[in-house]
Amino acid sequence: MTQALRLGIAGLGTVGGGVLDILARHEGLVAARAGRPVEVVAVSARSKGKDRGHDLSKLAWHDDPVKLAADPAVDVFIELMGGEGDPAKAAVETALKAGKHVITANKALLAHHGSALARLAEEKGVALNFEASVAGGIPIIKTIREGLAGNRVGKLFGIMNGTCNYILTKMANEGRSFADVLKEAQQLGYAEADPTFDVGGFDTAHKLAVLTSLAFGVQVNLKAIDIEGIEQITLDDIRQAGEMGYKIKLLGVAVASEQGIEQRVHPTLIPKGSPAADTDGVFNAVVVKGDFVGDLMLEGRGAGAHPTASAVLSDIVDIARGNFRPAFGIPAKELRPYKAAPQKAHEGGFYVALTLQDKPGAVAAVAKILAEEKISIESIFQRGKLEKDEARATAPFILITHDTVESAMRAALERIEKDGHVAGHPRMIRIERL
Amino acid sequence: MTQALRLGIAGLGTVGGGVLDILARHEGLVAARAGRPVEVVAVSARSKGKDRGHDLSKLAWHDDPVKLAADPAVDVFIELMGGEGDPAKAAVETALKAGKHVITANKALLAHHGSALARLAEEKGVALNFEASVAGGIPIIKTIREGLAGNRVGKLFGIMNGTCNYILTKMANEGRSFADVLKEAQQLGYAEADPTFDVGGFDTAHKLAVLTSLAFGVQVNLKAIDIEGIEQITLDDIRQAGEMGYKIKLLGVAVASEQGIEQRVHPTLIPKGSPAADTDGVFNAVVVKGDFVGDLMLEGRGAGAHPTASAVLSDIVDIARGNFRPAFGIPAKELRPYKAAPQKAHEGGFYVALTLQDKPGAVAAVAKILAEEKISIESIFQRGKLEKDEARATAPFILITHDTVESAMRAALERIEKDGHVAGHPRMIRIERL
Repeated sequence: MTQALRLGIAGLGTVGGGVLDILARHEGLVAARAGRPVEVVAVSARSKGKDRGHDLSKLAWHDDPVKLAADPAVDVFIELMGGEGDPAKAAVETALKAGKHVITANKALLAHHGSALARLAEEKGVALNFEASVAGGIPIIKTIREGLAGNRVGKLFGIMNGTCNYILTKMANEGRSFADVLKEAQQLGYAEADPTFDVGGFDTAHKLAVLTSLAFGVQVNLKAIDIEGIEQITLDDIRQAGEMGYKIKLLGVAVASEQGIEQRVHPTLIPKGSPAADTDGVFNAVVVKGDFVGDLMLEGRGAGAHPTASAVLSDIVDIARGNFRPAFGIPAKELRPYKAAPQKAHEGGFYVALTLQDKPGAVAAVAKILAEEKISIESIFQRGKLEKDEARATAPFILITHDTVESAMRAALERIEKDGHVAGHPRMIRIERL
Repeated sequence: MTQALRLGIAGLGTVGGGVLDILARHEGLVAARAGRPVEVVAVSARSKGKDRGHDLSKLAWHDDPVKLAADPAVDVFIELMGGEGDPAKAAVETALKAGKHVITANKALLAHHGSALARLAEEKGVALNFEASVAGGIPIIKTIREGLAGNRVGKLFGIMNGTCNYILTKMANEGRSFADVLKEAQQLGYAEADPTFDVGGFDTAHKLAVLTSLAFGVQVNLKAIDIEGIEQITLDDIRQAGEMGYKIKLLGVAVASEQGIEQRVHPTLIPKGSPAADTDGVFNAVVVKGDFVGDLMLEGRGAGAHPTASAVLSDIVDIARGNFRPAFGIPAKELRPYKAAPQKAHEGGFYVALTLQDKPGAVAAVAKILAEEKISIESIFQRGKLEKDEARATAPFILITHDTVESAMRAALERIEKDGHVAGHPRMIRIERL
């Protein structure tokens, strides 16, 4: 058996601890699959004294992850600290420049600096692997980069944030409000004290940026993503959508066409029974549409110590076997510049929720504006006045449109809002028929 | 760019044609991903003159696939003929012995001779890749072999035969009989004139044998599989299961425990909403349970020219990049001998369909036998006499058991059949709660 592959792990939190767990439990199995022993030789973390359930006394300890990245005893630098800037960025760059392979679970780093880091890795002839950065234990990076090597991908979408999916699932199943479920999720540790990064769609956007680059062979472009979170989703929306045969999920969607690329993160109505509609709770799912393979879905645990560590192990074994290729599937210098599709050119159905003034002509006024914007209505649901709104004399009014261009939809909603027949802002949720 | 990878393709039927389609459409894309040009240099097929929509005039033609396998101009021999014996076997052996990489879609060959071929490939230091052999376009081989390298797999199961799934889906959705849907499937080309290989579960068994070896690190053992097809499934079974919240699917199931390995192929009741329950029509799905990753499901097109060719391309690009590893994940000589779990030790729930003689004491007699065999009943459904059975005075009687050992269930059914209160054979269908 050849020489051991020597790992240096920066960050011993949830995922780092998970990696130590797997290596402790499956030492022999991993060695057989890797074709050589795999061992952790050095680590770096915030507090040296903390009990992590593993004996670290024989490992080199670095207070500074950048020093760990430069440690000559390390073959592979594993970055599990997170954060788009330093020290993660400096440490990864240091390791690559020193000719070390890098494994990272850091989607923020990749979403902001992925193309540059990929180029650096290739100049040095080393791996930059990041299976754990998207959708936890689901091997979506390997699948797109290797499994679909014979395909041009036209579209992909995914449920990639467990916090959002947990909240939406609980709201639907237990009839509770967003605020109520969020509070519980925070108490259970499924959501952060400041939940904006998750519920605002930013975490999903980071992951989407990585998948988009990989799937379409373009430079990573986080800024091009149109991001909308789930904060505005009401229990009524979920119920109404349910009655009409839809579930509401936070999706990251990327579409490539001749006009360019479209990347969006937003709550979405997806028909029950379609792929990913049954992906509930903390599970993630990613659907990829390849021109030869057709629709392919992967579903599994998108977060957590052990599923995410499982993804890191896949990268480790690939490197141990010398099985690595350009980070984004093709050489970084061949990644095409990102060309965005025209703004709001997305075409699809829309769910529209209005609060209608309860006076004659309101429905007619709304219908007239939609007709003028050439938006065709598939179904309308008007409920009687809600009792609590009695004083204001308004009524909820829901409609589903046939496929229409987003810019027309937005123009119509602006006109409807100004027209004086609705109270508050009209809201729309996109529909994806998959 | 380095030297081209030269392919020789034996078999230009559905899948072979699909591979030519992809290479023609994505020549540049494949070369970028492979890091080198990939070109077909030689082919072999039954009839040279047939128009396949591709210009083959510049390729070397071999009437004999074994000659193609020995052609010094070929780096990778791609076997797409099928069949467990010669010429496929002889051709693959010839290629491996000549130090050529081999790609095959031939599940029968692998199920019968996989361990020996893997050993031969390793002795020669070449790849034996077979992504296309199981579940068409779904990259399940790569996922288990590489993506789950940090996991010990405890269980896997899958819907791996499109013909069966198409038939069961049509029966459920359109309320038609097995015979009726089978006939239509034959007319549409989804089922063979002799459908036994598919509907009898043998195709699924071949695929299961391959996955079992890969997932558990044991020698391939097709003979150990307990195989039952879907021929006996009635429309009543599907309806009754549906009312009780289940779908009926033909599953291949493999479970590893300390007692040994259990491999089974049989119609199965799976709860609606569980993974793979919505995998309908010609789609396939495979669920793998890893000890760190948890449940992972892959769903996609399990057959057809282009999805299957997509899988072949994944193998081609891996070989072009030198990214290959032992066929079954660990060196063939380290694959453990197959140790079977005790016969009928499977424990689970059962759906039991009886035709009860419509006379006093029949239900009591059945219940007594079940109680004596320590089988606990979860629910019972007895419908009124079916009109068409009026003359025979019998009534269908369906029950669902709590988890019980299969041997006890079989003993009870034997006793019930002999007891004189039922007409015909009692039937049972296993339930998997996933």
